[in-house]
Amino acid sequence: MQFSLFNPTRIIFGENTIEQIGGAIAEGGYERVLLVAGGGSIKQNGVYDTVISSLADANIERVECWGVRPNPVLGKVGEAIEIARVNNVQAVLAVGGGSVIDTAKAVAAGVFLDDIWQAFEWKVPITQALPIFTVLTLSATGSEMNGNAVLTNEQENKKWGIGNRLLYPKVSIVDPSVQKTLPWDQTVNGALDAIAHILEFYFHGTNEETTIAIDEALIKTIIDSVDKLQVDGLDVDSRANLAWAATLALNGIGGAGMRGGEWACHDIEHSISCLYPEIAHGAGLGIVFPAWMLFTHEANPKQFARFARNIWDCDDIEKAIFKMRTKIESWKGFVRLRDLGIAKDRLSAIAANATMIRSLGRLRVLERSDVESILNIAY
Amino acid sequence: MQFSLFNPTRIIFGENTIEQIGGAIAEGGYERVLLVAGGGSIKQNGVYDTVISSLADANIERVECWGVRPNPVLGKVGEAIEIARVNNVQAVLAVGGGSVIDTAKAVAAGVFLDDIWQAFEWKVPITQALPIFTVLTLSATGSEMNGNAVLTNEQENKKWGIGNRLLYPKVSIVDPSVQKTLPWDQTVNGALDAIAHILEFYFHGTNEETTIAIDEALIKTIIDSVDKLQVDGLDVDSRANLAWAATLALNGIGGAGMRGGEWACHDIEHSISCLYPEIAHGAGLGIVFPAWMLFTHEANPKQFARFARNIWDCDDIEKAIFKMRTKIESWKGFVRLRDLGIAKDRLSAIAANATMIRSLGRLRVLERSDVESILNIAY
Repeated sequence: MQFSLFNPTRIIFGENTIEQIGGAIAEGGYERVLLVAGGGSIKQNGVYDTVISSLADANIERVECWGVRPNPVLGKVGEAIEIARVNNVQAVLAVGGGSVIDTAKAVAAGVFLDDIWQAFEWKVPITQALPIFTVLTLSATGSEMNGNAVLTNEQENKKWGIGNRLLYPKVSIVDPSVQKTLPWDQTVNGALDAIAHILEFYFHGTNEETTIAIDEALIKTIIDSVDKLQVDGLDVDSRANLAWAATLALNGIGGAGMRGGEWACHDIEHSISCLYPEIAHGAGLGIVFPAWMLFTHEANPKQFARFARNIWDCDDIEKAIFKMRTKIESWKGFVRLRDLGIAKDRLSAIAANATMIRSLGRLRVLERSDVESILNIAY
Repeated sequence: MQFSLFNPTRIIFGENTIEQIGGAIAEGGYERVLLVAGGGSIKQNGVYDTVISSLADANIERVECWGVRPNPVLGKVGEAIEIARVNNVQAVLAVGGGSVIDTAKAVAAGVFLDDIWQAFEWKVPITQALPIFTVLTLSATGSEMNGNAVLTNEQENKKWGIGNRLLYPKVSIVDPSVQKTLPWDQTVNGALDAIAHILEFYFHGTNEETTIAIDEALIKTIIDSVDKLQVDGLDVDSRANLAWAATLALNGIGGAGMRGGEWACHDIEHSISCLYPEIAHGAGLGIVFPAWMLFTHEANPKQFARFARNIWDCDDIEKAIFKMRTKIESWKGFVRLRDLGIAKDRLSAIAANATMIRSLGRLRVLERSDVESILNIAY
C-alpha cells in the first residue's frame, strides 16, 4: 500500500450553508469573481439568489457566464476565459454540478494559457490557475473536492481530462438540501457516477482492507440512499449521505493505496458521451460498467467475488452483475446502450474513439476490438 | 448533517517513504529544523539513520531534542522551545509516535508565545506556528493528520488539549513497515486508541449513514488487522491497514457530521494517565470505554444496538461489551483498572481531576459522581 494524499479543499457541508460563499471568497482576499453556471436551474431552486446576496454582502463583484451544458465543451470554456480576462477577475466561482465545476477549472487554468486544450493533450503544463470556489448543486462527479476536470473538444471529438494540484477548489459548499428538487434521473445518474468512481479503484483491490472496506461502506450507502430517495425525494438525510459519499468517492479516500485504479469504463463512457453529448455520463457508466465487469472479472476473481458477496449478498459474480443491473432498472435507469438511442453500427466508431491514442485498462488491457466486445455486451 | 472539513496535511504513505522527508522539507524552503524524538527506538529500527541521511541529502541542518515520553509533559516542551529559539529553527520535525508529534506541535506554537500552557488553558490564542513535519513510527493518535495536541502539565496535574488550524503537519510520512518491530502491547494500545477515536464520534450517530458506515468499516478493519498481527507481527499489509485506519479515525473523515462527538472517555482517561503517567493512553481507553458504554448506552439505544449487531454480531449491547472486553483480553490487553496498578482509593481523585473544570460528556452528562461510578465499573 503506497500512496500520497493531499487535499487542501475546505468543505462546508449542510443545509443553509450556501450563504457562506461570499465570506469564504472574501476571506481569501478576492474582490471580483467570474460566476460560472449552467442552464438556469439555480434560478428556480433559489441557489442563485442566495449566492448573489452572499456575494453582495461580502462586497464581491461578479461577472457571469451561463450556459454550461452536461458533458461540457471547450467552446464554452473559451467564451468564459474571454469574459474572465476582459473583466480581470481574481477567482472563479462555479455554481452547479460537475460540468459547471469542470468548466470553471478549465477557465481558472486557461486564463494563463494560449490554448487550454494543449493542457488536456498533456502537451503544456498547468503552472498557474485562478483560485476556484464552488457551490455544488448535483452530487456526482466529486469535482468539488479534487483537482480533476473533464472536457469535450467538440471540434476534434475528444473527451479528455486534466488533473492538477492547482485545480483543487479552495472552498466547496455542499448543501444537499438543494438537491431535493432535482429530476429523478439526475439523482440516479449522479449516484451511478459516484459508484463508478469507487469501482474504478475497488476492482484493483488485493489486501488494502482499509480502503476496500470504506469503498464497500460507500457503495452500500449510496445504494441505500437512492432506494430511500425513490420513496421520498425530500428525505434530507439520504440526500446528505448520498452527497457526502459521492464527494468521498473521488477525493482521495475511496482510492487510497489502489495504485491509481482502472478507468477503462470511464474512458469508454467518455467516448460515448463525446459522440452522443445528450447522453448523461452517469447513465453511460451504469451501462458500461456491468458489461466491463462481465468481460474482465476473471482478471481479479477474488475481488470480484468479494464484491458479489459483500455488496450483493451473492456467491456468483455473474448473478451479482445481474442484481446490479436489476437495481439500476428499479431506479428507472438504463441498462442497455440501445435504450439510449445509439445505433448498433456506431459501436465501432465509439471503440475507435476510445482507443484513439492508446489501449485502455490495466486489469485487462483493452484494444479496440475488446472495447467493441464490451460495447456489444452493453448493447 | 452539518460540518466543515479542511485538512491540508500531505500524507506520504508506504514502505521506504521515509527517505522523502528531507525533500519534503526542502520543498517548503526550510533549511534548519528542530528534530524532536522519544527514547531512542528510532535508533534501533533504522528510522533515525534514514531521516538524517535524507536531511543531509537535502542540505537541511538540524538540532535535536530527545527524551519525549509517552503522555508527554510540558517540561520537555519548554526545553525544546528553548532549543528551537536559540538555534533559530524554521520548522519542527517530529520523528516518533503521537507523544513526539504532540510535543512538536506545542513547540511549533510555543516559540511564539510567552507561555504555551496558556493556550492549553484556552486563555491565549495560537496565531502563529512553525511549520510541522512528521515521520510516524506508531499508529495510534492520528496526530499525524490533524491539528490537535494533548499535553500534561506535570506541575498542575492537568492533561489537556489544543486544536488549531496552524498545527496540521505540512507533510506526514507514514511507513507502516517500521512498526513491525514495535512491542506487542504498543501495537494493541495504538489500535485501542484509534478505535476509541472512532467510537467517540460513532455513538453520537443517528442518520449520518455515510460516516457511520465508514466508522464501522474502520473499526472492523482495525480489529481484523490486530488479530492478523497477533499471528504474524511482520504482516506488512495488516500494519498498513491498521496505520491508515488509525489516521482516518481522527483526520475528519471518521467524525464528519457527528457534531463533534462525545470525548468523555478521553477526558476520563487523560486524568488517569495524568495521575499515573506510566499508564499508556490506549490501555486506559480500552478499560474506560467499555465501562462508559455500560453506563451510557441507554442514552442512544438505537446506535448502541447497531454497534452490537454490526461490529460484534450480537443482539444485546451488554453481550457486545463483554465480547469487546474478551477481544481486548485475547490481545493480552487490560480490561480492569486494578490490573494497571491503580489503588481503589484513588478513583475519587481521578474523578475529581476529570471534572476539575466542568462536567463531562454529551450523550449523558457526567458529574464527578458519575465519573466515579464509571471508574468503579472499570475497576
